[in-house]
Amino acid sequence: MKRIITLTTDFGLDDPYVGIMKGVILGINPDAVIVDITHSVGPQDVVEGAFVLSTSFAYFPTSTIHVVVVDPGVGGRRAALLIETSHGLFIGPDNGVLSWATGFAPAGRTSGRLVADIKHIFELTNRRCWLPEISSTFHGRDIFAPVAAHLSVGAQPSQCGREVGSYHQLPWPTVERKADGSVVGSVLHVDRFGNLITNLPAEYIGDGQTAVKFEVAGQSVVGLSRAYQGNGLLALIGSSGYLEIAVAGGSAAATLGVSRGAEVVVRQADNG
Amino acid sequence: MKRIITLTTDFGLDDPYVGIMKGVILGINPDAVIVDITHSVGPQDVVEGAFVLSTSFAYFPTSTIHVVVVDPGVGGRRAALLIETSHGLFIGPDNGVLSWATGFAPAGRTSGRLVADIKHIFELTNRRCWLPEISSTFHGRDIFAPVAAHLSVGAQPSQCGREVGSYHQLPWPTVERKADGSVVGSVLHVDRFGNLITNLPAEYIGDGQTAVKFEVAGQSVVGLSRAYQGNGLLALIGSSGYLEIAVAGGSAAATLGVSRGAEVVVRQADNG
Amino acid sequence: MKRIITLTTDFGLDDPYVGIMKGVILGINPDAVIVDITHSVGPQDVVEGAFVLSTSFAYFPTSTIHVVVVDPGVGGRRAALLIETSHGLFIGPDNGVLSWATGFAPAGRTSGRLVADIKHIFELTNRRCWLPEISSTFHGRDIFAPVAAHLSVGAQPSQCGREVGSYHQLPWPTVERKADGSVVGSVLHVDRFGNLITNLPAEYIGDGQTAVKFEVAGQSVVGLSRAYQGNGLLALIGSSGYLEIAVAGGSAAATLGVSRGAEVVVRQADNG
Repeated sequence: MKRIITLTTDFGLDDPYVGIMKGVILGINPDAVIVDITHSVGPQDVVEGAFVLSTSFAYFPTSTIHVVVVDPGVGGRRAALLIETSHGLFIGPDNGVLSWATGFAPAGRTSGRLVADIKHIFELTNRRCWLPEISSTFHGRDIFAPVAAHLSVGAQPSQCGREVGSYHQLPWPTVERKADGSVVGSVLHVDRFGNLITNLPAEYIGDGQTAVKFEVAGQSVVGLSRAYQGNGLLALIGSSGYLEIAVAGGSAAATLGVSRGAEVVVRQADNG
Repeated sequence: MKRIITLTTDFGLDDPYVGIMKGVILGINPDAVIVDITHSVGPQDVVEGAFVLSTSFAYFPTSTIHVVVVDPGVGGRRAALLIETSHGLFIGPDNGVLSWATGFAPAGRTSGRLVADIKHIFELTNRRCWLPEISSTFHGRDIFAPVAAHLSVGAQPSQCGREVGSYHQLPWPTVERKADGSVVGSVLHVDRFGNLITNLPAEYIGDGQTAVKFEVAGQSVVGLSRAYQGNGLLALIGSSGYLEIAVAGGSAAATLGVSRGAEVVVRQADNG
Repeated sequence: MKRIITLTTDFGLDDPYVGIMKGVILGINPDAVIVDITHSVGPQDVVEGAFVLSTSFAYFPTSTIHVVVVDPGVGGRRAALLIETSHGLFIGPDNGVLSWATGFAPAGRTSGRLVADIKHIFELTNRRCWLPEISSTFHGRDIFAPVAAHLSVGAQPSQCGREVGSYHQLPWPTVERKADGSVVGSVLHVDRFGNLITNLPAEYIGDGQTAVKFEVAGQSVVGLSRAYQGNGLLALIGSSGYLEIAVAGGSAAATLGVSRGAEVVVRQADNG
């Protein structure tokens, strides 16, 4: 039975862990179509995993099963979850890694971010959906992969465990509106090109009519660019819908010497 | 509809960009067979992208659709192309990245390199083959991936845009024949093993009867080896058909301290 | 014909070599399901390749074809092998890289490691299963990939070459039992998380009733943990069944400053 299963992990590609998960999936469903989103989430970096998933899932069909394994608490008391949504199934540990891609409509909706509406949350408790032997260190292989594979061949979400009412919600990094009208956010992700992707969706940038100034690491840019074209520092709304600081043909991260967490201020250029 | 789509980009695998392109493709053609050629082309390194594609495409069936996204001009004025050839379809920006794999037969043929004969070149102008919303920074997701997917389910190349007569041709790095009969080329690519792959196809090396000397970084090797066997510096015709400088069980790049662009001289050993 | 073919190489993902092998396979069998185990085996590191394969193959269906290309002797006199086992087909050079995943039952069985029972070993000699042109530097593309593809569409192992009685066996890194009852092994692999995976299967750790002490790099841990939970240095039986030294939420390799080959001692805590 053809069905897309995506994998997002912090396993890297140097070890055989990802290949092993694929072997387990294909052993249960030889027709599964497995797509790697990324395996380069920083080791145990739940925030990065949550962000990557939240910017990716919407480009997959709504029948997709998304598996996320960024799991510092593996083998401990954290639950394993399956979330049924309007835009696919999501499987992973209950540490917040699934909580930026999914939300309870409409209250759980952070303005400006696309979120898959939660229908049901299940805790994975049915061992018949797991591998026969369960390690305490590799639930990606022993629990998450086989559950995804069983779902892909027709198991119902409710057969995988018991419904629960809530899950661990990761807080979105603070966005502060100051009295002077400026907005203070932060860098959430630095991509391969050195682009600084912030936690500020487009609606914080204003109406596009008034000139806006962006400040980061003691430097500033006035006005939004449309693309990575031009000279020096640029600000633009990136492909995921967030404010990005970039350098055309170069790396903003290297130019400014900043990394995740760096403060980014948006203000009316007049206020400057 | 089963059809191979290859991806060659400078996106790396740390970000979700490649996974997102695959989601878009599979959303349009669930039966597409997607193969990564590499995503480690240096950021915005059009030359490296062109070389990688030119050494890879011939090992895929002629029905393959090759998508290349090394696109420093994304969102600017460069056109997006679809090239119909005797050896598959090629999709990418019009910055030369497709121009070493493809050529007009026979005049455009650089001696010694395998090239896919161009039948038609189209500029991608038909928005019905794209995603509904087009960003100005991620045409891999919004234009190139969906065009490839539509072609893979039967769209005709001519339905994707308007035919154009020419495209941007990337110059092949200079090969100079000196008055003394020697040939001067350069290192075009350094692979993971530290092998120095030059821009000199086998025919520059002579008839195999006369001893030949190779000079790079002040060192020299006499004679061609058959394989990566032996001691010290070796010269051989590598698996892509180009002269390579290598060190058996080691890295020629590290041993010689050279990288792309380094000069390589080929001369008759007698002339030495 | 649907059939899983896994790839384990030292090619890395920066060059197009892996993508080219996939093109060759899909050209012969468009329905092959290709799974990457890893391509990050250290360049020409036969030991690492052997270990990775030995911890992975059992999670794939027994119909799987495993291709391993870690091949410092390519183009030299080493044979190319196809091994038919109770748990899949294994293809690779005869340098020992296949010899930890496979073994002659029961004598060849190293206690504590899961091994695929060898039924037949063939030397790949039938050129009709290869690409028409054979380089002397890239047998992954020219021999191993096409042989795997032909097997995946129904070729019999015996059609690929002539049966041989033995193959190159890589020695398992020494495990020494001392007169005082202690066991001395070594670190066999360091994974992305910095976990030190040793060459000691669980049975060396004792009955679980007596307290056990583990010594590495001048530091020691008493007792086995169940998971990567707690503080400081931990010892546990990892997901592949071997003793691991780890640091919860950190890297044991970085904390201890050790790499592959480091000595690990197991002793009764009383003996301390």
